[in-house]
Amino acid sequence: MDPRVREHAETLVDWSARIEAGDDVVVSVAEGAHELGVAVAAALGERGANVVTTYGSAEVDRAYVEAHDGDFSEPAHELALYEHADAVLRLGGGRNTAEGAGVAPEKQRARGEATKGVREARMDTDWVSTVHPTRSLAQQAGMSLSEYRDFVYDAVLRDWAALADEMDRMKDVLDAGSEVRIVNEGTDLTMRIDGRTAVNSCASVAYDSHNLPSGEVFTAPYATEGHVTFDVPMTVRGEAVRDVRLTFADGEVVDVEAAQGEATIREVVETDEGSKRLGELGIGMNRGIDRVTDNILFDEKMGGTVHLALGRAYDANTPEGETGNDSAVHVDLITDMRGESRLDVDGETVQEDGVFVWE
Amino acid sequence: MDPRVREHAETLVDWSARIEAGDDVVVSVAEGAHELGVAVAAALGERGANVVTTYGSAEVDRAYVEAHDGDFSEPAHELALYEHADAVLRLGGGRNTAEGAGVAPEKQRARGEATKGVREARMDTDWVSTVHPTRSLAQQAGMSLSEYRDFVYDAVLRDWAALADEMDRMKDVLDAGSEVRIVNEGTDLTMRIDGRTAVNSCASVAYDSHNLPSGEVFTAPYATEGHVTFDVPMTVRGEAVRDVRLTFADGEVVDVEAAQGEATIREVVETDEGSKRLGELGIGMNRGIDRVTDNILFDEKMGGTVHLALGRAYDANTPEGETGNDSAVHVDLITDMRGESRLDVDGETVQEDGVFVWE
Repeated sequence: MDPRVREHAETLVDWSARIEAGDDVVVSVAEGAHELGVAVAAALGERGANVVTTYGSAEVDRAYVEAHDGDFSEPAHELALYEHADAVLRLGGGRNTAEGAGVAPEKQRARGEATKGVREARMDTDWVSTVHPTRSLAQQAGMSLSEYRDFVYDAVLRDWAALADEMDRMKDVLDAGSEVRIVNEGTDLTMRIDGRTAVNSCASVAYDSHNLPSGEVFTAPYATEGHVTFDVPMTVRGEAVRDVRLTFADGEVVDVEAAQGEATIREVVETDEGSKRLGELGIGMNRGIDRVTDNILFDEKMGGTVHLALGRAYDANTPEGETGNDSAVHVDLITDMRGESRLDVDGETVQEDGVFVWE
Repeated sequence: MDPRVREHAETLVDWSARIEAGDDVVVSVAEGAHELGVAVAAALGERGANVVTTYGSAEVDRAYVEAHDGDFSEPAHELALYEHADAVLRLGGGRNTAEGAGVAPEKQRARGEATKGVREARMDTDWVSTVHPTRSLAQQAGMSLSEYRDFVYDAVLRDWAALADEMDRMKDVLDAGSEVRIVNEGTDLTMRIDGRTAVNSCASVAYDSHNLPSGEVFTAPYATEGHVTFDVPMTVRGEAVRDVRLTFADGEVVDVEAAQGEATIREVVETDEGSKRLGELGIGMNRGIDRVTDNILFDEKMGGTVHLALGRAYDANTPEGETGNDSAVHVDLITDMRGESRLDVDGETVQEDGVFVWE
């Protein structure tokens, strides 16, 4: 076994999920994540945790939903499983990222409603999602398997404690700041952040961060003014989007242009009132991620990028009892700061040409 | 997909487990049983059941147990899962039948004790075990994969309702009878069965039968006299045994001979008081199984064979409140009746040369 698989498992179990002896853990193993499943089981055994292993198969899932008449009921046994679990480790990595394509959306919705309690019980645990590098994900990223493995382990096997410290610096700047300005080729955008709290998302439940890899600091901006160009290629709702340019006035999108996928972005913007405003400003700080792989789990964490989401804000960014921007959507778009660029907070430059001032 | 995979899934869900809409079902998918898992999920979806899919990986299991220090605790989440389940469908078929080899037996025992409640909760459901034909099982059977597939589906895809009726005839004969005599080359054995109730094991929870395939009628004999030769090759405790000849007097084994594996059989016989006596007489009636594959799930059901087990009897064969032969072991041995042979009950021939009188 590639020793990095073991390191991945140990990072997941110790840094991310903080598993202790006697914890009741559910491990979901995707079709292609067997090897990581074995390594995670060994790490959990060593720590004296209890394990139930579920099979996270997109093919099994699809066969079930397609055959069902759509009148779903709440699965009492699944609910009981998660209500009694301390942690849920989701090992992604299927054999076909398009396996869910074409399943009737109304059935998916009906199932989602019937299993709402199950999902809430799962989110109530110390859950963490990660991925094993599979051929299917390598294909989506346009890489050979061995190159993709290197990419994933560079992203996952960080000195997370050191990165968490660095991200705390960024969080402190944002928490103390009132206004953020982003400038790069095609972008000059300002937004307010006063009264908002930034989240240090460093891939650990101890920081309320549930993805491995992670590596971003995010907050919930408002009163956005100016224009921004998202030059990182992405897939949004199954459509390729390229060089999206949004213009904001009084906090709302007033103009949309794109080299590709303009109709898709207009659709997103016009969803509801909240989808015209930003819900998230995220600053990618994971230097292990150095290129785009068309997988948002990785792309938005890339060091030297900034992402903005149209739509819903996270509650963690607003004071207890208050909520930020509300919308049915949350669509991330990314701009690369690794050219001529500046990220200022209250007029002080925090990052120049994609490099933080403390780097 | 081989249409027989779907038929297998439907037989399992409908005939064996009697699944109905709203049932909470756990499906355990072994490493090599993915395809059957997909077919079973579709069948369960069609019937409107709820599904949790677990991953029955011998490699994951081994990694966990080996890494653990052996001080296991009861997994509350696993217990909750099975306590809330109506049925558990175990789809066997791994990638290496020897994956469990060499794991410290004291750890296995300790884990077995800690998970006793989980096992009992699982046995309290309508559980059924079956296997998907994998390369690993084909190898154990000494067959190519395609030949082994034919073998498995011949055994599994029976007209179970018709076989259940035929097996009821056999059960009626045994229930009404007092003495069984088995005669073939190397065998002349008599045993008492009065006061005992035969079980019609026809692969359905409706008959308290939990294996697919099944196809045997069994009871709990006593007062065995004479000698018997088990000419079907088997593996007992990891050792090949061939042509075992046991001599009984006053119900107990008084002599053991074997062409191979004699020491292993002596060890079994000398385990305790009960291991010197028979705990089971089983009559194989599944005509879809026509050869030995060194897998007791199939071998003992083979039409035209009779098996006898040294050791523990099943409670189902004795009146409520009474127990049959007690022992720490239950070791099946098989004799082939498809040569010159006779199976008599109270002097009436039920089967001659491996053919039942009603066939």
